[in-house]
Amino acid sequence: MPANKPPLYTCLSPALLNLYDISNSIVVIIDVLRATSTITTALYNGAKCVIPVATVPRCIELGEELGGITAGERDGRVAEGLSFGNSPFEYPREFIKDRVLVLTTTNGTKLLHMALDNGAQEIITGSFPNLSAVCDHLVEKNMPVILGCAAWKDRVNMEDTLFAGAVIGRIKEHFSINCDSSHFAENLYKLAQPDLFEFMKVNDASHYHRLMGYGLEKDIRYCLTPDLANVLPQFHGDKLVVA
Amino acid sequence: MPANKPPLYTCLSPALLNLYDISNSIVVIIDVLRATSTITTALYNGAKCVIPVATVPRCIELGEELGGITAGERDGRVAEGLSFGNSPFEYPREFIKDRVLVLTTTNGTKLLHMALDNGAQEIITGSFPNLSAVCDHLVEKNMPVILGCAAWKDRVNMEDTLFAGAVIGRIKEHFSINCDSSHFAENLYKLAQPDLFEFMKVNDASHYHRLMGYGLEKDIRYCLTPDLANVLPQFHGDKLVVA
Repeated sequence: MPANKPPLYTCLSPALLNLYDISNSIVVIIDVLRATSTITTALYNGAKCVIPVATVPRCIELGEELGGITAGERDGRVAEGLSFGNSPFEYPREFIKDRVLVLTTTNGTKLLHMALDNGAQEIITGSFPNLSAVCDHLVEKNMPVILGCAAWKDRVNMEDTLFAGAVIGRIKEHFSINCDSSHFAENLYKLAQPDLFEFMKVNDASHYHRLMGYGLEKDIRYCLTPDLANVLPQFHGDKLVVA
Repeated sequence: MPANKPPLYTCLSPALLNLYDISNSIVVIIDVLRATSTITTALYNGAKCVIPVATVPRCIELGEELGGITAGERDGRVAEGLSFGNSPFEYPREFIKDRVLVLTTTNGTKLLHMALDNGAQEIITGSFPNLSAVCDHLVEKNMPVILGCAAWKDRVNMEDTLFAGAVIGRIKEHFSINCDSSHFAENLYKLAQPDLFEFMKVNDASHYHRLMGYGLEKDIRYCLTPDLANVLPQFHGDKLVVA
């Protein structure tokens, strides 16, 4: 007789995280454009670890302390006092291998710390570049899952929801899903799947709009492509490392 | 030269309402299964007004004071101390005409009071049975709009999102929509539109599941059908009346 399947929920915004009991769950932090895509890319390319921090001063402080690379953007530019930005293309192997990346992002870091404060059993990050690694891990662990969309200043966004839908489409038979947000993330992804970039464009997704305005089409296309940096960033202590 | 179009946002859960400036907006309260469907039905059938209240004791108190009909359910049954339930079929013309209906619902009433407390310019209720009345009014007023989904205990739900999508599909050319929630409500509705009931069923929407368990298929079908009770409930003072 098969065991009961663990539940899976999709939380569309950090402002809704308190609705879910995450204490016995794996929480997947999803910030597709571009934090979690960049994190998996840096780790895939050999970074020793990625330390997510909430503020620019903390990023500078920790960068000095650890001899790490400081990175983060505000309004589409490298934040004052930091050295690098949020683009996955800034972290090729020849640059990032064996180094510590201290990264400040707003939405993803906020959600990660909320998950931590609420006692998540395990925290990993998800993005299209590591879609398969996330799915394989969730199926293997066979535990309750919260797909946590980082959103944009708590407003639900298209690309994080699409990623949640992509995960659900792949692994749903292993979970019990009684969650309308999950059902419509899955439907949305099915609709978008033939061409995610085009779907973001046609629907004038707010983040598509913002990043195109900064000339970052190449970043968007990379961040919507599965398995280009297929490792599993897992949170331990205060850092993300390859599981 | 055409004037700038007013903005339209979709708020998928009461827990997200604080992200929007509603002080100069029309807020549409959406609680498709079944509060706002029942409200428009009662008013369409001649009710003098509908007074939404948060609790059973307040419902009883006001019912006595005003000689009104007290109505509301908890866990699928008429709440103790009240006389009627949440089904639109309980309020035919021969029963409800010229009477006051005091209705207690959880999600819809909560959102309505939040909109009121946050100084919404105007509050109306929306549901498939009054879809056209809502759309016509929003276009005519030409003001900022918040489509406010009542959700279920703050969890995003399918049917309220679908209704938001139905409204957007009809009136979007009159508004400026920079809101991913709106874009995916619209996409979801397009996908579901050939057969909303079937879509709710196939996706095992949580509320579909709950109401089917109470034997309320007829209610669900009615609540997903456009324009069967096509009036515009508008909130004035403490009551909803036909605009």
